[in-house]
Amino acid sequence: MAKSSSGNFFEDFRLGQEIVHAVPRTITTGDTALYSALYGMRFPVQSSDAFAQSVGLERAPIDDLLLFHVIFGKTVPDISLNAVANLGYADCRMIRSAYPGDSFTARSKVIGLRENANGKTGIVYVRSTGFNQHGEEVLSYVRWVMVAKRDLAAPAPETFVPELPERVAPEALALPEGLAFSAYDRAVAGSPYFFDDYEVGERIDHIDGMTIEEAEHQIATRLYQNTAKGHFDERLQRESRFGRRIVYGGHVISLARSLSFNGLANAGFVAAINGGRHVNPAAGGNTIYCWSSVLEKYEQRADVGALRLRTIATKDLPCADFPQTGGPNESSILLDLDYWVLMPRATR
Amino acid sequence: MAKSSSGNFFEDFRLGQEIVHAVPRTITTGDTALYSALYGMRFPVQSSDAFAQSVGLERAPIDDLLLFHVIFGKTVPDISLNAVANLGYADCRMIRSAYPGDSFTARSKVIGLRENANGKTGIVYVRSTGFNQHGEEVLSYVRWVMVAKRDLAAPAPETFVPELPERVAPEALALPEGLAFSAYDRAVAGSPYFFDDYEVGERIDHIDGMTIEEAEHQIATRLYQNTAKGHFDERLQRESRFGRRIVYGGHVISLARSLSFNGLANAGFVAAINGGRHVNPAAGGNTIYCWSSVLEKYEQRADVGALRLRTIATKDLPCADFPQTGGPNESSILLDLDYWVLMPRATR
Amino acid sequence: MAKSSSGNFFEDFRLGQEIVHAVPRTITTGDTALYSALYGMRFPVQSSDAFAQSVGLERAPIDDLLLFHVIFGKTVPDISLNAVANLGYADCRMIRSAYPGDSFTARSKVIGLRENANGKTGIVYVRSTGFNQHGEEVLSYVRWVMVAKRDLAAPAPETFVPELPERVAPEALALPEGLAFSAYDRAVAGSPYFFDDYEVGERIDHIDGMTIEEAEHQIATRLYQNTAKGHFDERLQRESRFGRRIVYGGHVISLARSLSFNGLANAGFVAAINGGRHVNPAAGGNTIYCWSSVLEKYEQRADVGALRLRTIATKDLPCADFPQTGGPNESSILLDLDYWVLMPRATR
Repeated sequence: MAKSSSGNFFEDFRLGQEIVHAVPRTITTGDTALYSALYGMRFPVQSSDAFAQSVGLERAPIDDLLLFHVIFGKTVPDISLNAVANLGYADCRMIRSAYPGDSFTARSKVIGLRENANGKTGIVYVRSTGFNQHGEEVLSYVRWVMVAKRDLAAPAPETFVPELPERVAPEALALPEGLAFSAYDRAVAGSPYFFDDYEVGERIDHIDGMTIEEAEHQIATRLYQNTAKGHFDERLQRESRFGRRIVYGGHVISLARSLSFNGLANAGFVAAINGGRHVNPAAGGNTIYCWSSVLEKYEQRADVGALRLRTIATKDLPCADFPQTGGPNESSILLDLDYWVLMPRATR
Repeated sequence: MAKSSSGNFFEDFRLGQEIVHAVPRTITTGDTALYSALYGMRFPVQSSDAFAQSVGLERAPIDDLLLFHVIFGKTVPDISLNAVANLGYADCRMIRSAYPGDSFTARSKVIGLRENANGKTGIVYVRSTGFNQHGEEVLSYVRWVMVAKRDLAAPAPETFVPELPERVAPEALALPEGLAFSAYDRAVAGSPYFFDDYEVGERIDHIDGMTIEEAEHQIATRLYQNTAKGHFDERLQRESRFGRRIVYGGHVISLARSLSFNGLANAGFVAAINGGRHVNPAAGGNTIYCWSSVLEKYEQRADVGALRLRTIATKDLPCADFPQTGGPNESSILLDLDYWVLMPRATR
Repeated sequence: MAKSSSGNFFEDFRLGQEIVHAVPRTITTGDTALYSALYGMRFPVQSSDAFAQSVGLERAPIDDLLLFHVIFGKTVPDISLNAVANLGYADCRMIRSAYPGDSFTARSKVIGLRENANGKTGIVYVRSTGFNQHGEEVLSYVRWVMVAKRDLAAPAPETFVPELPERVAPEALALPEGLAFSAYDRAVAGSPYFFDDYEVGERIDHIDGMTIEEAEHQIATRLYQNTAKGHFDERLQRESRFGRRIVYGGHVISLARSLSFNGLANAGFVAAINGGRHVNPAAGGNTIYCWSSVLEKYEQRADVGALRLRTIATKDLPCADFPQTGGPNESSILLDLDYWVLMPRATR
């Protein structure tokens, strides 16, 4: 019996199946330092213990997306090792704050299956949930991936496509425990713009660009213990349809998030990801740019508001003209992400 | 008097000589995070404080090979700065658990010398030992290197070749203090295979490949404070027989160890290295694959067994066919390593 | 109103203007581990908690240059995002020891302005100061940069050029609190040479070379939250006078500092930077070498002396012949740095 695993194929999944993922993982300040260095993160609450304490937290929390990537990474060996494509995310909610020193595990449940008409692949929908060392949920999301069949003769499962919310309802967004934005220092934070300064429909060019090196995305993706071969095995990838290693889509999300500081400096928390699509794959040498638009606003408390943002990231194409998916620049677009951020509100 | 050093040459070594190595070093969670990110380590005890505590340890210990590389790195400026080749290792024993926050030093003793017939080089055998901040031994190993002579006219020392054990006796393997594998959770660890599931003679293809980037091996090798020029100085190396930088052999060991998780997920501790040979040097751009065979088994306790493994790592050659040294694929083989790992045993 | 910023231009600065910089930042052992791995730092006090304690400190302090880069990084978005050239440093003093876990902020004051004759650029002089979480100054320095004008028709400010000291007076150098070099262990530190062994006029070739990879300088520069586009945006830089990304000058300073261990192993503290010039920009693929000369000596205490050093760093040019600025190797010279280090004195 082979002791190494080539991962699950489409016919290995059953509706309702529960999967306990390897590997348990403590996130330390070593991991948060690496995360900062890989993306140049500048959001002040995550950057400084002193600043975090000034807004009511214990210390600088783990960046929401670092936690997302670590939980996501755990699901890869079971869910997407044989994925042909990572199709989408939905209903991703950050449930509970996480701090360096916390230990995480992850579990998934198969919530939908649909074999494709070609009989070679199928779509698997999973809800994946991360837990801390106390067994409390820290985040939860749905993703769906197209997975190859091992045996083309394997019978198709009954089709079930789950109903997914178009967006996380803002009333349902969790606030970090203890958060008090009333004392938020906008001078040291780097931007005078608070929740009340943004308008629905507003568009922001984040201006700066960042070129991806192979070593960088490999180091990041290994930090997340994500084992998808396409990110690491240049020899194998030369024979693939891409012809080379491709960058973990989450790496592009974090790069765009970091670049978005220029224009959204006070949007330090991602409270939810409503949906996301990796429009094209990124590769080493690509320079990433991005822009955002404000889709929706929600006043959560006197001191906190939630902005629903759409961020578009591109490769080798600056975003001063706000390039759109579906337009002439489609091949330059990498990411189309819809998410909620939390922002301080102006005190009166 | 020159204050910078070009390292020791063959004629600088004396049988019985004791060398105190620079530099004292604390290994922190910053170092362990980097180690994870450089190799994608997934062994659960080293990955999670919570998991480590579930098997009786204080917290996630320092990976055995990270500790090995740090101690090894200290020996380089004194032992192998003028090495022509790193010939072998023997009798490497992990003696005591090490945790983030511990501080280490290293000392070596010259235990053998043999000038080569060409009169240009000689072989130096050293036993190197690492100590923690309490002065306790944490690991000890023998290595032998071929070192250039500075002055070809320097007289040859008396030849002494130490007797070295073919393998560390399994009865002598140290178990981490407090280790209790009885509560080991194989679902969250990532593999159902325990000590009792492996058979002597069994071969395991670890399947996955990892491409080495120059930045990665340089970052790793500097993390270990290893100063061997061949890993860092591209200009100098262009004039060498390799024509370019070569990768620290220990980097290949750690890559192979990380890849071996796929098939050996519960082999979280390296208890000893019996021997090892860097068959060919690796360079940036090489994709590393590996396979292992089980050489020997030893039941240490009701909850712990030791597997003696041989792991062969290759460049640009997948290992489904189990390539051997001495065969037609010799030039693709990088590493031939013989070592003991600890594994939980099935509870009845 | 645009919420993203393109940085200040020359006409945006006013003499006497005070600028509070983003982003507050805690430096952790994660950051210090990365710093070690990026440069291969080997100075024992910063490398080992146990060694640091043996010389009277709480634990391994933050490397002086890491702290400098972090404070410098904060000033970039406000001061030098539109810099044409980073012209010089002066009067940089390390004022107070900093330890992992400390949180830092930075402020600058505009202390000089001079428009250039061409009417397109001007020189801005700033004094920048870093503070810890207690509001205490940790370091302070002057730098001057040539900054582009946005609007060429903007009127020139009154010219004011501050008087700057040629060097920090050695009597003014701060010693780390608690430092007692009397118990300094030179065997484990790696060099027998103490303050009293160095002579004014002495020159030291640091011998070793280190090749810079793009991923390395990007990771370092992001670690410092330095947002200068020229280091990150390959697409944009292709259109620049350099034709490619250039390396943050501070990265070269830290590489030279790390290489200088070979010859200056006991010079673990940078107490001040008297002046510095980036003679030429470095780029990925360059191999860095350096040499130092002793400019001045000052006996601070019975156990501590200060050496004033000049370190010259080159690209692709070994320094056995001590290449000078202004000579035939000018185009190979990257850095000319004048600084004070602290060294233990021989006890009698």
